[in-house]
Amino acid sequence: MSGPAGTLWLVPNTLDFGTEGIPPDLQEVLPLGVIRTAARLGHWVVENARTTRAFLKRVDAVVPLAQPLQAISIVELPRAHKGPARSAAADLTPLLAPAGQGHDLGLMSEAGMPAVADPGAALVQAAHARGIRVVALPGPSALLLAVAASGLNGQSFAFVGYLPVDAAERAARIRELEARSRRDGQTQLVIETPYRNAALLGALLAHLEPGTRLSVGCGLTLPSGFTRTDAVRGWQARPTTLPGDVPVVFSLLAA
Amino acid sequence: MSGPAGTLWLVPNTLDFGTEGIPPDLQEVLPLGVIRTAARLGHWVVENARTTRAFLKRVDAVVPLAQPLQAISIVELPRAHKGPARSAAADLTPLLAPAGQGHDLGLMSEAGMPAVADPGAALVQAAHARGIRVVALPGPSALLLAVAASGLNGQSFAFVGYLPVDAAERAARIRELEARSRRDGQTQLVIETPYRNAALLGALLAHLEPGTRLSVGCGLTLPSGFTRTDAVRGWQARPTTLPGDVPVVFSLLAA
Repeated sequence: MSGPAGTLWLVPNTLDFGTEGIPPDLQEVLPLGVIRTAARLGHWVVENARTTRAFLKRVDAVVPLAQPLQAISIVELPRAHKGPARSAAADLTPLLAPAGQGHDLGLMSEAGMPAVADPGAALVQAAHARGIRVVALPGPSALLLAVAASGLNGQSFAFVGYLPVDAAERAARIRELEARSRRDGQTQLVIETPYRNAALLGALLAHLEPGTRLSVGCGLTLPSGFTRTDAVRGWQARPTTLPGDVPVVFSLLAA
Repeated sequence: MSGPAGTLWLVPNTLDFGTEGIPPDLQEVLPLGVIRTAARLGHWVVENARTTRAFLKRVDAVVPLAQPLQAISIVELPRAHKGPARSAAADLTPLLAPAGQGHDLGLMSEAGMPAVADPGAALVQAAHARGIRVVALPGPSALLLAVAASGLNGQSFAFVGYLPVDAAERAARIRELEARSRRDGQTQLVIETPYRNAALLGALLAHLEPGTRLSVGCGLTLPSGFTRTDAVRGWQARPTTLPGDVPVVFSLLAA
């Protein structure tokens, strides 16, 4: 229990959303302290209620939930368009009402850290505007794991979200990111909807310079996960087929 | 045990490096699976051998080490200058020799995720060049926690390291980052040596536009930690004094 106003806890989810097979034990990827916090929260705002209920069942197997799952309030964020979080957004203040009533509140994404590469940032912004304490809890982030395992520049890197789907626009954007990477020595990270993984890899290999280094962080934290980093010319000479059902982070650093 | 060649495991450290008082239980911030991996490794390459030994003692309190601490090989990375990781580096191949002999190898930073905002990326790069499997394990990252808790744009953000110490160069760099943030709608993250936290905050408030939003992620994961996000004019009207002994991540997003 906190004081007069509740705290907004940003609770990381696992990275196995949508993947097949038996999910790994929650303790493989989440600290016990985070699982304990998740187990005691009675109010959630989430990207997807169904995946949050599945998460809470996994929590319950490690630390019993403080109340029955059916008694826990789980409210979904309004669907957001992909794109910059600063675009016009719905007023999310009503979602923070439990915090105003002294209840701690959890924010959860479908995968990884909430409010990173997902629509949750607007809720965090609304919390700061109302003076509600915000605490982010440690856990898996595909972006950070990808940067670390890439061996590319980890002292300057940028995550820029999704690339355009239109082929010509995507090619132009790839060249723009490569030029920026060259100018600033900055690693550039992009993500894609899993079923387009192979198409995006093809586009990157078609439009990047042969000497640019490209890292693919595939299914990170999953048993089948791997990271391959190679120059574009190495990828072209020794292709890797990417699965279409697990998340991939693509990182590039121009020579 | 792995196959013919060992794996390079990137093991996240806690974020309480250099802070006073009793460190929190490792299980508050690290998954049990990560602690288990750390407990079985007999070979490490690290930023600082002393802090790695302290970390392994904390591991041992949760999962007994597979061998006595004195029998574990801990080799320090060559000291690197601050700056882009792509600058000329020593040949790190000899440090990977245990992996060539079939031993798993751990890489550890003084705080947070190795090879992010630290000199470890060169070792990861050398591992990829030799075909050694690289696996990054989930854990706390001050950068990711700061982005999430900031409420600023988490769909496009860049970490750019340290700012220049020289006042005029620092002011110019602050204005450059603000201009880039405005142009791309991209959150810009910087860090500073803790004793310069207050000076950097002062410089940011002196040189950013009043409407730019500034987030300070202070001592993240520590009991005293907090995140404040406000417009620059709000910071100026209601100052916060930053401690000089805990790490801070500064994030800005131009209006």
